[in-house]
Amino acid sequence: MIDDILARIENGTLTAAEAKEKLASYEDLGFVKIDHHRHKRQGVPEIIFGEGKTAEQILVIIKSLKTRGHEVLATRISTEKAAFILKELPELTYNEIARTLSFVTRKPSGEGYIAIVCAGTSDLPVAEEAAVTAETLGVPVRRFYDVGVAGLHRLLDNIEEIRGADVSVCVAGMEGALPSVLGGLVENPIIAVPTSIGYGANFNGLSALLSMLNSCASGVSVVNIDNGFGAAYNAVLIHRLAYKGETT
Amino acid sequence: MIDDILARIENGTLTAAEAKEKLASYEDLGFVKIDHHRHKRQGVPEIIFGEGKTAEQILVIIKSLKTRGHEVLATRISTEKAAFILKELPELTYNEIARTLSFVTRKPSGEGYIAIVCAGTSDLPVAEEAAVTAETLGVPVRRFYDVGVAGLHRLLDNIEEIRGADVSVCVAGMEGALPSVLGGLVENPIIAVPTSIGYGANFNGLSALLSMLNSCASGVSVVNIDNGFGAAYNAVLIHRLAYKGETT
Amino acid sequence: MIDDILARIENGTLTAAEAKEKLASYEDLGFVKIDHHRHKRQGVPEIIFGEGKTAEQILVIIKSLKTRGHEVLATRISTEKAAFILKELPELTYNEIARTLSFVTRKPSGEGYIAIVCAGTSDLPVAEEAAVTAETLGVPVRRFYDVGVAGLHRLLDNIEEIRGADVSVCVAGMEGALPSVLGGLVENPIIAVPTSIGYGANFNGLSALLSMLNSCASGVSVVNIDNGFGAAYNAVLIHRLAYKGETT
Amino acid sequence: MIDDILARIENGTLTAAEAKEKLASYEDLGFVKIDHHRHKRQGVPEIIFGEGKTAEQILVIIKSLKTRGHEVLATRISTEKAAFILKELPELTYNEIARTLSFVTRKPSGEGYIAIVCAGTSDLPVAEEAAVTAETLGVPVRRFYDVGVAGLHRLLDNIEEIRGADVSVCVAGMEGALPSVLGGLVENPIIAVPTSIGYGANFNGLSALLSMLNSCASGVSVVNIDNGFGAAYNAVLIHRLAYKGETT
Amino acid sequence: MIDDILARIENGTLTAAEAKEKLASYEDLGFVKIDHHRHKRQGVPEIIFGEGKTAEQILVIIKSLKTRGHEVLATRISTEKAAFILKELPELTYNEIARTLSFVTRKPSGEGYIAIVCAGTSDLPVAEEAAVTAETLGVPVRRFYDVGVAGLHRLLDNIEEIRGADVSVCVAGMEGALPSVLGGLVENPIIAVPTSIGYGANFNGLSALLSMLNSCASGVSVVNIDNGFGAAYNAVLIHRLAYKGETT
Amino acid sequence: MIDDILARIENGTLTAAEAKEKLASYEDLGFVKIDHHRHKRQGVPEIIFGEGKTAEQILVIIKSLKTRGHEVLATRISTEKAAFILKELPELTYNEIARTLSFVTRKPSGEGYIAIVCAGTSDLPVAEEAAVTAETLGVPVRRFYDVGVAGLHRLLDNIEEIRGADVSVCVAGMEGALPSVLGGLVENPIIAVPTSIGYGANFNGLSALLSMLNSCASGVSVVNIDNGFGAAYNAVLIHRLAYKGETT
Amino acid sequence: MIDDILARIENGTLTAAEAKEKLASYEDLGFVKIDHHRHKRQGVPEIIFGEGKTAEQILVIIKSLKTRGHEVLATRISTEKAAFILKELPELTYNEIARTLSFVTRKPSGEGYIAIVCAGTSDLPVAEEAAVTAETLGVPVRRFYDVGVAGLHRLLDNIEEIRGADVSVCVAGMEGALPSVLGGLVENPIIAVPTSIGYGANFNGLSALLSMLNSCASGVSVVNIDNGFGAAYNAVLIHRLAYKGETT
Amino acid sequence: MIDDILARIENGTLTAAEAKEKLASYEDLGFVKIDHHRHKRQGVPEIIFGEGKTAEQILVIIKSLKTRGHEVLATRISTEKAAFILKELPELTYNEIARTLSFVTRKPSGEGYIAIVCAGTSDLPVAEEAAVTAETLGVPVRRFYDVGVAGLHRLLDNIEEIRGADVSVCVAGMEGALPSVLGGLVENPIIAVPTSIGYGANFNGLSALLSMLNSCASGVSVVNIDNGFGAAYNAVLIHRLAYKGETT
Repeated sequence: MIDDILARIENGTLTAAEAKEKLASYEDLGFVKIDHHRHKRQGVPEIIFGEGKTAEQILVIIKSLKTRGHEVLATRISTEKAAFILKELPELTYNEIARTLSFVTRKPSGEGYIAIVCAGTSDLPVAEEAAVTAETLGVPVRRFYDVGVAGLHRLLDNIEEIRGADVSVCVAGMEGALPSVLGGLVENPIIAVPTSIGYGANFNGLSALLSMLNSCASGVSVVNIDNGFGAAYNAVLIHRLAYKGETT
Repeated sequence: MIDDILARIENGTLTAAEAKEKLASYEDLGFVKIDHHRHKRQGVPEIIFGEGKTAEQILVIIKSLKTRGHEVLATRISTEKAAFILKELPELTYNEIARTLSFVTRKPSGEGYIAIVCAGTSDLPVAEEAAVTAETLGVPVRRFYDVGVAGLHRLLDNIEEIRGADVSVCVAGMEGALPSVLGGLVENPIIAVPTSIGYGANFNGLSALLSMLNSCASGVSVVNIDNGFGAAYNAVLIHRLAYKGETT
Repeated sequence: MIDDILARIENGTLTAAEAKEKLASYEDLGFVKIDHHRHKRQGVPEIIFGEGKTAEQILVIIKSLKTRGHEVLATRISTEKAAFILKELPELTYNEIARTLSFVTRKPSGEGYIAIVCAGTSDLPVAEEAAVTAETLGVPVRRFYDVGVAGLHRLLDNIEEIRGADVSVCVAGMEGALPSVLGGLVENPIIAVPTSIGYGANFNGLSALLSMLNSCASGVSVVNIDNGFGAAYNAVLIHRLAYKGETT
Repeated sequence: MIDDILARIENGTLTAAEAKEKLASYEDLGFVKIDHHRHKRQGVPEIIFGEGKTAEQILVIIKSLKTRGHEVLATRISTEKAAFILKELPELTYNEIARTLSFVTRKPSGEGYIAIVCAGTSDLPVAEEAAVTAETLGVPVRRFYDVGVAGLHRLLDNIEEIRGADVSVCVAGMEGALPSVLGGLVENPIIAVPTSIGYGANFNGLSALLSMLNSCASGVSVVNIDNGFGAAYNAVLIHRLAYKGETT
Repeated sequence: MIDDILARIENGTLTAAEAKEKLASYEDLGFVKIDHHRHKRQGVPEIIFGEGKTAEQILVIIKSLKTRGHEVLATRISTEKAAFILKELPELTYNEIARTLSFVTRKPSGEGYIAIVCAGTSDLPVAEEAAVTAETLGVPVRRFYDVGVAGLHRLLDNIEEIRGADVSVCVAGMEGALPSVLGGLVENPIIAVPTSIGYGANFNGLSALLSMLNSCASGVSVVNIDNGFGAAYNAVLIHRLAYKGETT
Repeated sequence: MIDDILARIENGTLTAAEAKEKLASYEDLGFVKIDHHRHKRQGVPEIIFGEGKTAEQILVIIKSLKTRGHEVLATRISTEKAAFILKELPELTYNEIARTLSFVTRKPSGEGYIAIVCAGTSDLPVAEEAAVTAETLGVPVRRFYDVGVAGLHRLLDNIEEIRGADVSVCVAGMEGALPSVLGGLVENPIIAVPTSIGYGANFNGLSALLSMLNSCASGVSVVNIDNGFGAAYNAVLIHRLAYKGETT
Repeated sequence: MIDDILARIENGTLTAAEAKEKLASYEDLGFVKIDHHRHKRQGVPEIIFGEGKTAEQILVIIKSLKTRGHEVLATRISTEKAAFILKELPELTYNEIARTLSFVTRKPSGEGYIAIVCAGTSDLPVAEEAAVTAETLGVPVRRFYDVGVAGLHRLLDNIEEIRGADVSVCVAGMEGALPSVLGGLVENPIIAVPTSIGYGANFNGLSALLSMLNSCASGVSVVNIDNGFGAAYNAVLIHRLAYKGETT
Repeated sequence: MIDDILARIENGTLTAAEAKEKLASYEDLGFVKIDHHRHKRQGVPEIIFGEGKTAEQILVIIKSLKTRGHEVLATRISTEKAAFILKELPELTYNEIARTLSFVTRKPSGEGYIAIVCAGTSDLPVAEEAAVTAETLGVPVRRFYDVGVAGLHRLLDNIEEIRGADVSVCVAGMEGALPSVLGGLVENPIIAVPTSIGYGANFNGLSALLSMLNSCASGVSVVNIDNGFGAAYNAVLIHRLAYKGETT
């Protein structure tokens, strides 16, 4: 890219000012620099991480994205912040379990699907954050909830449909054993998400995180604790590869 | 016990000296106080933990136990220490994998058995320490090795025989998921042993330890990392309860 | 089990559909898959872990269990959630210290008892969770509270009655020394429960957890921090073995 | 799969014995159960993790795999173990940096490539383990070594070729910043591998591990510390999806 | 200094009482000993760390400082405490983002400037604490916010102006990679501040802290998590050296 | 003691019942077993640790102690609990900073004193808990507050009076350096108390705790984080030795 | 002291040079500054910590101390270093278990004694380091070894003699429960020393350290892991107070 | 810089090829990319971190640097590696304590100096690594060794000369208190280096690291454990600012 830009300046097809614009194409709002070219550059819109931002800041960013016709996805949005933003932008959708605010026009479509597999009822918020993320990015998902390893038949009952997915997001708290078991049963990649669900020596998800990193099954990679969004984002990138961009 | 002893002194059936003997009945060798009444009091001989003791110290203790006709079990014995001790006491048996020295006259017998279930080949030393311990204490064991969760069918193939055990010792390193899966499949108690096998974020067994403590299966309790002896000891106590002392 | 089922399909005594029903017999409520066969398979009802579930979700699960005549035990139920559920199901019992909701028809009965031994007054909630669990599962318990090691005579006074138990649940916070001392005085298995009680370098129960895992007494196994339920569940399984199912 | 097998037994096209063979098709060597169907089931041969296994055990497993015509990959093989095994099987290849033993007949071929990107010279062993793994599994790789973030121009010089890969394996020790920077520059998935390289507050790779898990770039998932094999395995699964099995 | 004082007492130019006054010149308010000579001794006024002090205590200290004509800077002041203090001392300035109370008469002036570089919007409170501190101590600052490594062009766009600073304060949470990248691009010293921003395996800033300590760039030193004040204080000392006291 | 009691039973000067009373002399209130003989046995009354006990429980215990004429000291008492208890027992004294409730009749008296040395204003609650404890147990204290190592002259000004103490309690948070410096300046024992004061990488007092344990000064021993009571209790035991019981 | 020195300079009884000599009276050997006044100032000789120093450095320091007639104690001396030093200074005594080199002329004498209480045989090196330290500093000790809590009668048998000590050093590894039990049985202060003895989740003494810091017994303070020297040093300071210097 | 280069291409004073050379000017040796422009860009030569590199690799890099007339500094060089390299390049200097290999032609010169202050004899290797680094980079240093806080007079004796330094490197292990004390006594910046010296709860330098990060003195920033090189590098950058490049 740099090579290309430098060459084009030299041969006169690009001015230095244009070159700079190409390299630094974001909107500078002072407290934030919004990346409007990300959509082109990476094929997905800039996603807003809501934690640590005020409702006012989030509103400003969403408006800036919407103005340019981008889709919107904001994660970790409390009900209070959502209420504040929805007052001005009622066209957004708030998912109370996933704690996401989104604005999507098209429907997920195309071939294949991502399996969202989750161990227990308490892991639902993380699993739903993953599901909403994938759907907002245009990829179909199928949900397999409460199929933890202590009741193996619940997982085995659904295993054929999970095996049919191009990639799985596997969400588990407590001892985080589900990805290891799943990894021995499916052939496609698994993105594991440890959750902070549990108590005592769970240490806020450390137990599940270490389990997943030490998984004896080989096709498992891991994202941060409770990071449903990140897992789905990875899954979408993989899914896109599988269909060479047809779905996104 | 104290009530009883006090009463017997009062009514003259016990002298104060005899009472003291009853309460403190060990042999004092200076660097160690050997508990010869443990056999009576707890139904099992004193077991020697070899780590941190010199070969000379271990030899002295074994001799003292043998003199009184006790059975002998010493764990964590390096090949060097074993060679030193076997020169003088060739009647002992050294198990190189389990790193145990033992002297047993009777054979394990009686009803029932303990299942020693182990996830991978690398966990063998811990599993064998458990097996030798149970056998030395007179309880039959059955071994189910390399049945980790990433190849579930290896476990399911053997599940009926594991279910038949009165109690299972379940040994696993890395992510330590085996006890959770096993716990959903068997009805009897499981003693889980995390091993220090693994690498990276395994942190010397911490990963497996946390997994087992956070197990979503309910019938699982845990002993220290690599503590095959302790797991078997617990299993023997439970087995003894199940047969009201018939086997030990 | 699988062998057996496969054979029965082959010889025609079981249809494939029936076989599947046998392997996957739960009620799927979307956010949860309730295991109604657990009672048969493991001899105990499904227990509800209340943390991370909404009052509405818990209510739905309890109703489903009650409909089929199962006994009910829900742990980690806050007073708010309890109030919500009791409005609709006033026949349940709420134990404020143990934070349990239960519905039991029969009384604990039969031979033997579990000793619930607890170090300090602050450990009561965990000890009571254990006691309620064992009683709900039909096993008699005896309570020995505030017998921590700093006042040894309080423990020694009760030691004969604790020795009479088939199995002990030993609850302690702070330095968690009680199971080690108890382990030297009783012959039957001890399930140790570290509690998060303490302050400073207690690190939310880590101190007691490590102590118990490193116990120099051999007949001690450990469950998760504050997991009174899990300890009692293990104790019940052991007690059941001792009486070959007479009490449950 | 289970559905299918059950149905086939019922309609007589499969005997129970055949069904069992299908579900549990491994060779039981006592200390290990070798999974010969993995190749069919998951499209890759069973890989041998050499740590914690004796040279004799590894030799036995390799022979068993070779007998059936499988390709062979063994990781974490010390020079001593390699020498022992090569004496008997001189046709194997030992890579001293990667510490792998492999036996491959075909050449990596087909479309696309995996980028192996590595921060510093000291990370080479892990990067090479990844490269050898991918090549053994039949996927072409391109190496980009010593392109850490402290000399950004070294990375930017190579960025177009890295962007051309279907998936990147990104290896870094110390502060583990490379995946975050790379994640902002490429569109395809990145599998990050923290290495234990560094000193002081690196804590054996913990620093790089935490960095990668907390990466502000979204398309990054993580495997265990020093787990070059695991990263490459994941990359191969993704690459296979991208070309629908053409290369493996 | 001590040499000098001792010599002066000996030769009579200083009494013992005066000597003592020189060595111990603080105001003792019982709960605090205010150091009024710090200004002379270290060239900066005593700064008040507000956490763990009551509003009343802070008010007393500020009054004591103001009485002697010192400038005032109090950090970690909640809005509640600020309101209480401002009622009595309305001439102070409260910065809500930085959570600082200050009383400054002169303007930052002189040559050079400190660059305050910050990775994300959520790191603003720490960056602002640094900025206010430097300005209160009389040194000009320039702010470069939201220039994290995942969007490298945002940083490169501003790099020339950052390179112009005498010293940079570099604030980042999550994976804390910014100082490493910046360290490869600028020649002057960088004071890195990890923030507690992030989630999951961020462990309250531990991730960013370890990253910064392990930075592969050499000109980076680190202060405590969220310690914007400390970073700016160090930067001011360095800046003062660069201009031999002209600006402070 | 046991010897003596056994002998006295044997020679008839003590009945078994009296012997038992001697060994187990506490009041059993169900949730707590109050040790009324501690005063005799250890020379100090039973102290109540208020955390984790309800106001009602604390009230019951205090009444029981007062009934027998014991002095009373309860630590970790919130203002709410204090208000509840003072309504019924207005003769108690509540110290809001130390969070103690006490009932003392005599004044501290006798020779010598304990120095309570504390690094910063924020450490006051812990220092005051220590001071109140020592005074309640009858030993005079002198307070040296806000003498942290960053302003060494504040410490050196008071060093002679601190050196005059029989034993010092040294309270510090943050980096916990004060005991090391003090240890090089005084000859008598120092009991160090780390406090949880600080932020960031302080990790709730871990930083100060580790510092004090690793102190390069030899006469320093350490108690738990924030354990002002424990430090003073140790100091009182040492002081009592120094005056052979004259003051207590 | 400073007051006094300043006053004396002023009134002419001390020159500035003499004053400086008083404040800084050590021998500067370049790599070390030996404190020859410590004996006067603190009543004990400078003790040499051997770890991290070469045999040559240790030899130089010992010679310097001996030249001035000081007693000598060097701890953490390997057999190799000891052999090197003894060749030149054969009058020193090397204790192989304690790993100390010492040169003592007088015998421990005077009233009272320190109890060295130790839980297991493996803790002996630390206990002996404590014993040698106390004896070198002139205080009589009595040893109570292998009296861990799992065999309570071994401790109770010796409790009267331990109670007779002015102060106890209590050494324990594994779960570190001994100080808590001892603290409930004796009236005088206890210095607890955690040892790194144990395995698995012992984490090199962390388990015992946390136990001792969280001890429910009040008269217990703690020194660093394996720090037998430090514990004895504290005990000697306390013993000295008890006898107002008679023994040292 | 980028702006400038782009402009120059546009106006024809630079070709694209020249521009690329400017941005990416390193020598690519396959396993390493040597940065020969660093000297110009950052004013210091590339320093070689020897750990994790083979003697052969280090030799190749040194030769490449020497060929271009650069000065050479390699850290963490074992005696074995040094011997190997010195055979071929005997003109290099090996410092056995600092474990550095260097090739310097000029002498440190110019105004001012860096103070290298170190707490104990065992910290010497780290302090010497810092000293050699600064001297190699052309800045004079003065050494102040064994001035730890437990013997405060040793520090105070040298304080005036330390205060005269432009910047101090402060090296300490164990409790790491020295920077806090020093920070209260000097006005210029302090770079603190924790060392891994100590034992027990030192946890390989964690104790000193946390102390320094939590320092109550404000002018202290911290580098990684044992990172003497990094501290000196920072000090040199600061020193260079103070003299505007006169000395380097």
